[in-house]
Amino acid sequence: MSTTPAYAAQSADKPLAPHAIERRTPGPHDVKIEILYCGVCHSDLHTARNEWGNTIYPCVPGHEIVGEVTAVGHEVKSFEVGDTVGVGCMVDSCGHCDSCKAGEENYCENGFTGTYNGPAQEDHANTYGGYSGQIVVNERFVLHIRHEGDLAAVAPLLCAGITTWSPLRHWGVGPGKKVGIVGLGGLGHMGVKLAHAMGAHVVLFTTSPGKIGDGKRLGANEVVISKDPAQMAQHAGSFDFILNTVAAPHNLDAYLNLLKRDGTMCLVGAPPIDSPHPSPTVFNLIMKRRGIAGSLIGGIRETQEMLDFCAEHGIVCDIERIAMKDINDAYERMLKGDVKYRFVIEMQTLKSEPEAA
Amino acid sequence: MSTTPAYAAQSADKPLAPHAIERRTPGPHDVKIEILYCGVCHSDLHTARNEWGNTIYPCVPGHEIVGEVTAVGHEVKSFEVGDTVGVGCMVDSCGHCDSCKAGEENYCENGFTGTYNGPAQEDHANTYGGYSGQIVVNERFVLHIRHEGDLAAVAPLLCAGITTWSPLRHWGVGPGKKVGIVGLGGLGHMGVKLAHAMGAHVVLFTTSPGKIGDGKRLGANEVVISKDPAQMAQHAGSFDFILNTVAAPHNLDAYLNLLKRDGTMCLVGAPPIDSPHPSPTVFNLIMKRRGIAGSLIGGIRETQEMLDFCAEHGIVCDIERIAMKDINDAYERMLKGDVKYRFVIEMQTLKSEPEAA
Repeated sequence: MSTTPAYAAQSADKPLAPHAIERRTPGPHDVKIEILYCGVCHSDLHTARNEWGNTIYPCVPGHEIVGEVTAVGHEVKSFEVGDTVGVGCMVDSCGHCDSCKAGEENYCENGFTGTYNGPAQEDHANTYGGYSGQIVVNERFVLHIRHEGDLAAVAPLLCAGITTWSPLRHWGVGPGKKVGIVGLGGLGHMGVKLAHAMGAHVVLFTTSPGKIGDGKRLGANEVVISKDPAQMAQHAGSFDFILNTVAAPHNLDAYLNLLKRDGTMCLVGAPPIDSPHPSPTVFNLIMKRRGIAGSLIGGIRETQEMLDFCAEHGIVCDIERIAMKDINDAYERMLKGDVKYRFVIEMQTLKSEPEAA
Repeated sequence: MSTTPAYAAQSADKPLAPHAIERRTPGPHDVKIEILYCGVCHSDLHTARNEWGNTIYPCVPGHEIVGEVTAVGHEVKSFEVGDTVGVGCMVDSCGHCDSCKAGEENYCENGFTGTYNGPAQEDHANTYGGYSGQIVVNERFVLHIRHEGDLAAVAPLLCAGITTWSPLRHWGVGPGKKVGIVGLGGLGHMGVKLAHAMGAHVVLFTTSPGKIGDGKRLGANEVVISKDPAQMAQHAGSFDFILNTVAAPHNLDAYLNLLKRDGTMCLVGAPPIDSPHPSPTVFNLIMKRRGIAGSLIGGIRETQEMLDFCAEHGIVCDIERIAMKDINDAYERMLKGDVKYRFVIEMQTLKSEPEAA
């Protein structure tokens, strides 16, 4: 075991504060990673504040991790000390169910182990995420990072990137397809970049006229103000696929009507259980054999494909860097949508802090 | 033009009663059909009573038609006088949109012409359905009936049959697949028969313990009482596809939870706009990349495939025969679910009535 500094919430109503955690001694298949950067995902806030009712405390969030390998177990073949690597939302899964065997560990039938808020597969212990100095992860859940230059903006690819990449690939987005991205936040801005790089005709839907310029800069061919029924009507029945990144309850019918025959709208955000979207109109599904689906992050193989694609195409996230000590302020700004488009913690700012209790 | 007897509703609050209608003289591509049998679909009742708010009166329902060809236009190649034929929910479509070109006239981008309650493509006139002595239909929308023996039970294949066949085929139902059918009514009983004949493992969901025997007789491998949470839980995460035929508002989550990763539930019934299903839980879609979709009847090519498959496998509907004059009583019984599983009007009972005004 080794001790590493971290930031943890001790309860739902406490801000995150310094806290020392233990990391296991690397086993034969483990990779030990010095964390350089960690992105700040909205799930971090939901979990730190127990908004999904399942948080185990102390809670160390963070699942958009980029770092450097400092040690490897003796069976590890794919990684060496000094490699730049990433860790996303998962650090383990059962490995033997149909989904795991299909390389879709994100849909593990027995439940994957989250990078934070576990529980671990073996001992059901809590897991601690990337708001920390080091992490030890089984090599099956470690990704190669092949980007050159500054790596801070790579970190959010590990969640925001793969969460949008996976459905875009699954539903065949590419040249000749008209694709909508609903919402321009952490997920949406990656959806626009990736769908554009895949060669699709990309239409961004936003409620904010102030985001038109950014939407186009990020790769949208068109930006539609979703509150304007006339603009929406111009796109009726024309989309092959819509990726909806908005978690807040909203009218899904407005987007279903924009799908072609056999088009799908995939939801990657979920409203709170007690305030769902208004029920979608079944006729809107029936009349053109349309579908509503959901998608959850992505498997390890496709995460590596996404990272390699992004390295090749020079794609990173648009980020704002913060120091570890500013995480609570960053959460408040994230709640207001005041971030373009992802906070990333520079983890040396944690290591240079006075040592925690 | 020729006059033929029919039964029509003259307004939403009037029962159906005898009414004479005109049929056009067959054009070069038309087929004139003496109607032998017409199935009674719940849509007939909705339309006769203007429950969807779009009924044009007088309204002559009926879109599950089996009859005999009595005349053909000089360009008609595929049909001859004396052929047994069927007409389903459509009698025309634009013919040039993407859906029509793909043979999916049921999703015509310009709106297909319903067999009743039109409007017709050319003159936007009302159309009159199968509760009548004769009908004249463009050959593109006439189907060959290759069943032998009694044809009354073939008629409902033209709507109840194709409405279940099309999604079962579209979502790849066959050997090795576990398929759920929700509801044992006109649509559901055909869903069970067809999914069974396609070689799937079929599970019928019903609220009525009294339907267990019928469900198994019709081809279900298992019957689950959907009100019993313990029975439902035994099937969690196990279905490739669920065909939901229930239009009444109900909890979709109970069925979404039964789908495997990448499973789809297809809805072929729609609740009234003002009393929708409770909004489905987005997490149930996200966690296994599940989908909810809709499907509307089927195209002409696949309707012919379905009819030929049913002729080959000896599949017809379970029906109760009625005389034309008993249609209003049949509607009342249909509202109570008191029919196993489709009423079919014997149309000679119309022709033997005293002549209508």
